Amino acid sequence: MNLHDMVQRSDTVPGRRFDRFVLLLIIASAISMSLSTVPDLSPTWQVALAAARYLIVALFTIEYGLRIVTADRRWRYIFSFYGIIDLVALSTFYANLVWTGMMDLRALRVLHLLRLFRAFGSVRYTTATARIGSALRYARDEATVFLFATLVLLYIAAMGIHHFESQAQPDKFHSVFDSLWWAVVTLTTVGYGDAYPITVGGRIWTFVVLFLGLGVVAVPAGLMATGLSRAIEEERAEARRIEEATQRERERREEG
Amino acid sequence: MNLHDMVQRSDTVPGRRFDRFVLLLIIASAISMSLSTVPDLSPTWQVALAAARYLIVALFTIEYGLRIVTADRRWRYIFSFYGIIDLVALSTFYANLVWTGMMDLRALRVLHLLRLFRAFGSVRYTTATARIGSALRYARDEATVFLFATLVLLYIAAMGIHHFESQAQPDKFHSVFDSLWWAVVTLTTVGYGDAYPITVGGRIWTFVVLFLGLGVVAVPAGLMATGLSRAIEEERAEARRIEEATQRERERREEG
Amino acid sequence: MNLHDMVQRSDTVPGRRFDRFVLLLIIASAISMSLSTVPDLSPTWQVALAAARYLIVALFTIEYGLRIVTADRRWRYIFSFYGIIDLVALSTFYANLVWTGMMDLRALRVLHLLRLFRAFGSVRYTTATARIGSALRYARDEATVFLFATLVLLYIAAMGIHHFESQAQPDKFHSVFDSLWWAVVTLTTVGYGDAYPITVGGRIWTFVVLFLGLGVVAVPAGLMATGLSRAIEEERAEARRIEEATQRERERREEG
Amino acid sequence: MNLHDMVQRSDTVPGRRFDRFVLLLIIASAISMSLSTVPDLSPTWQVALAAARYLIVALFTIEYGLRIVTADRRWRYIFSFYGIIDLVALSTFYANLVWTGMMDLRALRVLHLLRLFRAFGSVRYTTATARIGSALRYARDEATVFLFATLVLLYIAAMGIHHFESQAQPDKFHSVFDSLWWAVVTLTTVGYGDAYPITVGGRIWTFVVLFLGLGVVAVPAGLMATGLSRAIEEERAEARRIEEATQRERERREEG
Repeated sequence: MNLHDMVQRSDTVPGRRFDRFVLLLIIASAISMSLSTVPDLSPTWQVALAAARYLIVALFTIEYGLRIVTADRRWRYIFSFYGIIDLVALSTFYANLVWTGMMDLRALRVLHLLRLFRAFGSVRYTTATARIGSALRYARDEATVFLFATLVLLYIAAMGIHHFESQAQPDKFHSVFDSLWWAVVTLTTVGYGDAYPITVGGRIWTFVVLFLGLGVVAVPAGLMATGLSRAIEEERAEARRIEEATQRERERREEG
Repeated sequence: MNLHDMVQRSDTVPGRRFDRFVLLLIIASAISMSLSTVPDLSPTWQVALAAARYLIVALFTIEYGLRIVTADRRWRYIFSFYGIIDLVALSTFYANLVWTGMMDLRALRVLHLLRLFRAFGSVRYTTATARIGSALRYARDEATVFLFATLVLLYIAAMGIHHFESQAQPDKFHSVFDSLWWAVVTLTTVGYGDAYPITVGGRIWTFVVLFLGLGVVAVPAGLMATGLSRAIEEERAEARRIEEATQRERERREEG
Repeated sequence: MNLHDMVQRSDTVPGRRFDRFVLLLIIASAISMSLSTVPDLSPTWQVALAAARYLIVALFTIEYGLRIVTADRRWRYIFSFYGIIDLVALSTFYANLVWTGMMDLRALRVLHLLRLFRAFGSVRYTTATARIGSALRYARDEATVFLFATLVLLYIAAMGIHHFESQAQPDKFHSVFDSLWWAVVTLTTVGYGDAYPITVGGRIWTFVVLFLGLGVVAVPAGLMATGLSRAIEEERAEARRIEEATQRERERREEG
Repeated sequence: MNLHDMVQRSDTVPGRRFDRFVLLLIIASAISMSLSTVPDLSPTWQVALAAARYLIVALFTIEYGLRIVTADRRWRYIFSFYGIIDLVALSTFYANLVWTGMMDLRALRVLHLLRLFRAFGSVRYTTATARIGSALRYARDEATVFLFATLVLLYIAAMGIHHFESQAQPDKFHSVFDSLWWAVVTLTTVGYGDAYPITVGGRIWTFVVLFLGLGVVAVPAGLMATGLSRAIEEERAEARRIEEATQRERERREEG
């Protein structure tokens, strides 16, 4: 019973402490994983990082076991978003011990931070996350249409630039797949400068694609922002309505 | 009659199946066209891709024929947006068989995806597309003014940078046309880095142009986003009004 | 009298024709000026472009004279926005004939297009331009504060990067003026790649500056977009109010 | 008493003059600090700039002393935002005289401009700054969540690109810290071009990260813009309500 409250709930004192401990563990894991990628580490550091790795994974395994044991519906937890992340993270780590070619996906556990950071701001961030959820639902269909239109646009942009530039720069606009890379880098306005058109046709095509495309690519972020402000507004209108109703109820009682 | 329902309508079972088949065909066409651009393909792949090309174009030709035959108003279909795309795509393909210098515009058929992907989400995406249409109408005139102002701004930016940089970097700011390319890449914030000012005057000019220009270039996307959220809001207000009217009607009946 | 209507008004038939003629003249001027910058032109082209230049400037001079002669308040026209543009454009051209070192600012006349393109859409674009004006007024003070904050941010960003990078890359972060150029290119997200930090301190500083700065730089465009949608909304509410008042008036008359 | 009004208040004539003097002093300081970074200055300039530096710091020290002396609550001023900036700026300057390795943070004083520029627009900019404050509060929690999500996203993006590119480009995607730099430059769409993926896996990963990430990174600026327009709207609704109440009051009096 006590264990259940600690692991599964975040509105109790032991629950909040458990969340904070896991939060610190994930940050420690992220830092130690980052440090292990630094080349030419001294042997002392290497040993310390390896020790940290095994300790952290052991604690994560215990945490994962506790979550399954204390869950009300075990299978539901295992196949939930965070359950799958944990399963993938831990299983790829253990598989990696046996077969070193395996990709180690422990880094994904950092996604838990999106859930755990609420342990600090108690109610406020929980409300904010709920509002972000309702903003995501707000214009979901339109955003999907725009993301889909972005894919179509990327394909047409790539086919066009391949037509204009594949002769002039065969090393950079090799196949449509290279051209797709150019289209992604250009339409997101990242513009690394590793590939850019040099022919007149290719430059005019780039202009046309940017003219039509920037409006398409930037819209989902704008929808998210207006959706959020709409969610905040609705919540306030709801709060005002409740307040007014309470006020009227009080006045009626005083009259009666 | 059966054929008409299958080809022209998307709210019947055969109609939806037909749409999905065409959707898959377009995706297959896009993938096979992309693969054909890969250099040094093995002969087996080359033969397979050629076979796929002829098969897909044959099916597209049949589809195009069916659309004309079953259309209620044939000429209107032929000169509609998608009708012209099909005509251009197919005729450039066949012209290319005779005269290989002809540009092959089959890639344009991918635009049909913007219409066909609704076959998956039934009503939801149809509503979303309708809303995007009404959002486009919402601030159409203002967006036109801004796009026009963008063109004027690009010209002035190009003339200015040509004045400052054409002496210092004659290879990169050659003529105003090269400078226009720089203006497009800079004001869209792509910034490939193939051309940038090195003189003090050119850099101050770039600063002035970006200071004034970013507000102009980014506005159409913002208008699209606010237009969309307005369209969603209006639709909801309409739905609420209908619901309230129905409610009042019901109450009146119960009283009467 | 007739001349006044033609030059000063754009709601009469001769006025609209005059506007369209000036519009075409400006576009012809812009094209011929662009073509003159192309290096290695054939003598025939050079002669043709010179002839076009003198003809167009002669017509512009006549237009400028007509505008002054027909203006209701001459000095007010001369010192208006477009009056000053015309004065600067023509006087720099004539000064250039005498002293070739003079900068030729004829390109500025292209700004007239922002006024003249309304000659095509009659009422619609006039309304749109009026709404853009009211949107600019809408959040003018806030936008000013943000533009000012951008300047402060650019200065602090430049001082910081100069501190971190001036030792490591003395050729690129030479003085604060070079660093200011880096700050402009980075905070507008253009990112040419001609200067970027390579030290750890400089990179962390760039991250901090971008984290704080992107929100500041992007806000004026967002304010413009929301201001515009507000202006459209207010105009519609006004139209609805007038319509309802007319309706009520009509009902009252029918009853009376 | 007179001194208190001059230093602490900005709504009196001596107060406004004092503010303007400090404003000019900060701008002079910023310009002279910028000029000192120019290499190969002539000895005359060097002497003049050194003199300006000592004079300006002396005046700043006097100003700081006056602010403390005239403050109603001295400690509160010392530990306020601008108080700490002044303390840091002055103490690092004096410490630098003794130990030249010390970083000179006088540049931070430029932040005072955000407060002082109001001295020009009297009421208008004060209102605008107040509105910006209420807009910052408006969606603060959501913006915090998004900034936090940006950090998580940057970490995952860096771990992923390190996995794909560290073998192919060991000099550029050395450790996760180099990869983090790439993630910052890419997700802010700056795209210097000093590091970019060249493997197929790395490019697909970049596409995925940009597709998910651009919506996250761009939202805080959008929230700021909608928050501001909401603050303006609320203020106007408040003004209208007060006006209507005054109107009704007047009508009642006339009737009574």
